[in-house]
Amino acid sequence: MRVTTADVFEAMQDDLDRVERRLLEAAQIDFPIVSRMIQDLVTTSGKRLRPLLLLLAAKAFTYDRDRAVTAAAGVELLHTASLVHDDSIDMAALRRGQPTLNTHLSSGAVILIGDFLFAQSAILAAATESTRVVSIFASSLGSICDGQLRETLEAHRVDQDRESYERRIFGKTASLFAGAAEMGAVIGGAPNDAVQEMRSFGGDIGMAFQIVDDVLDLREGTQTLGKPAGNDLRQGVVTLPTMIFASGLPAGSPARDTLEAIVAGDELRDDAIGAIVAEIRASGALEKAEEIAAEYSESARSRISIVPDNETREYLDDVVDLTLIRTY
Amino acid sequence: MRVTTADVFEAMQDDLDRVERRLLEAAQIDFPIVSRMIQDLVTTSGKRLRPLLLLLAAKAFTYDRDRAVTAAAGVELLHTASLVHDDSIDMAALRRGQPTLNTHLSSGAVILIGDFLFAQSAILAAATESTRVVSIFASSLGSICDGQLRETLEAHRVDQDRESYERRIFGKTASLFAGAAEMGAVIGGAPNDAVQEMRSFGGDIGMAFQIVDDVLDLREGTQTLGKPAGNDLRQGVVTLPTMIFASGLPAGSPARDTLEAIVAGDELRDDAIGAIVAEIRASGALEKAEEIAAEYSESARSRISIVPDNETREYLDDVVDLTLIRTY
Repeated sequence: MRVTTADVFEAMQDDLDRVERRLLEAAQIDFPIVSRMIQDLVTTSGKRLRPLLLLLAAKAFTYDRDRAVTAAAGVELLHTASLVHDDSIDMAALRRGQPTLNTHLSSGAVILIGDFLFAQSAILAAATESTRVVSIFASSLGSICDGQLRETLEAHRVDQDRESYERRIFGKTASLFAGAAEMGAVIGGAPNDAVQEMRSFGGDIGMAFQIVDDVLDLREGTQTLGKPAGNDLRQGVVTLPTMIFASGLPAGSPARDTLEAIVAGDELRDDAIGAIVAEIRASGALEKAEEIAAEYSESARSRISIVPDNETREYLDDVVDLTLIRTY
Repeated sequence: MRVTTADVFEAMQDDLDRVERRLLEAAQIDFPIVSRMIQDLVTTSGKRLRPLLLLLAAKAFTYDRDRAVTAAAGVELLHTASLVHDDSIDMAALRRGQPTLNTHLSSGAVILIGDFLFAQSAILAAATESTRVVSIFASSLGSICDGQLRETLEAHRVDQDRESYERRIFGKTASLFAGAAEMGAVIGGAPNDAVQEMRSFGGDIGMAFQIVDDVLDLREGTQTLGKPAGNDLRQGVVTLPTMIFASGLPAGSPARDTLEAIVAGDELRDDAIGAIVAEIRASGALEKAEEIAAEYSESARSRISIVPDNETREYLDDVVDLTLIRTY
């Protein structure tokens, strides 16, 4: 596995800069203070993986730069909007170590700013003037909401199966990666089977991405993530490593009882959460979850052969690496 | 002014029933309990004025029933989604005397259900397969958020001018009426000048509608509205009648001081709010605001002449009446 992060970003830098400009335009709003906050939010958030994926999926075929850049900005803004509502729901004060809007604004204003960003992202999708792109966009938004709702409604229970976990993270995360790759391929004029294969490619790396994220939540601490380890557990959200860990715990064992109390929200003490996080780390569950992430990555990699252009195929391979090798 | 409410609804009943079926389909979600709540929300809310307007604006030209019905369902769902977030922001327990989602669900789930409905409404707009309809839809959503944000950010100050009030209610309410009429005309294949005139028609009745709403908030009590009179004041929102009333109060007068304290959120006692509401009623401000609403209605009426079909022209005239003669 080569680490070629710099290469793919460097190759696509010009197009990514165009995406950045579209994002800044879309973040304009006629209230100077709020406008500044939204612009900060839009410019500092994220590594632009979704726009990169969309641009490459278009470039893999005949490209159409203007429309691809517009759709890529739309996808990134949709992602940002969903983070805003996500942070608002969690009442999170920090994301990636930066203060969220929650520290500056009332919760009502934060919800509306999320809605505003959703609206602006839909406007960008519509600006591609492709009804197919708009449909993919709209159904990705539907999936994101569905996944987030599942996470909320299925929280606070340890007994969950991997199927419901995967359905949830597909909606919450992978659906937008799938949609981004699909939109890119459509804009690039790919034939239908290639569009479907690119969609599956995006879905696979999205699944890997979220599993790695869920592992990092248990492995890394405040310094790298900007939030304490075990944040998901604290919110009552059971992710793959925790499921794997729980499956090895006999009913009635002290560790199982503590885990259930934490997930139910009855045990909130930092030392209890820290102790369970240490047990999960020691159990090998993180590595087992990483193996599953790697399976998704390999599945993604196997799909790249559909791409005719050699160079773009290599860049897409780099994107697979990018989703695996992350520290935050 | 004839009251022909029944006529126009009766004439359009078949199409409105189709809208209802599209709404129910879009409100399906794979969690039985939540699905039931959303379906109740979608079926019990509102009088379907926006879908009616859209259908008539299409019928006024060559129509295209399937696409008009789809867009009409999209517009109504967008409206419902914005009510859900609106109630979530206000933490309102009742709307039109019915319990809101806030009484059953966590605020996080309510925000997500609003997002889900926004997504479903965008999917319906996209299903018209008209990029022009999707653009109008997306920019209406942008305007709604802008108007709601203005209401939040401009709250708690008595000194406001009519211009900022009108900009706010255009965004919050009239923009969707304008968009609905514009979408209908586009779907009906109207020529460009007629599309613009229909858009202005919708905007005018939307402005009248919101002013009447703001008057009702001060005139009617819990029995008809399902919430106490003066609810806007209680939230720190200054509407047209209150502005007109305030403009007649000398600085430093006791009524002005009380009003400022209520709007600032420093005075929350029911009897103080009740007393100011009574003063507003007695001042004639409600009637003056109604005159302004009537001006918008007359402006709307003057635009109907662009419609070639006699019958539809009469129905549109009825819709103007409907926005004025309301008790809730």
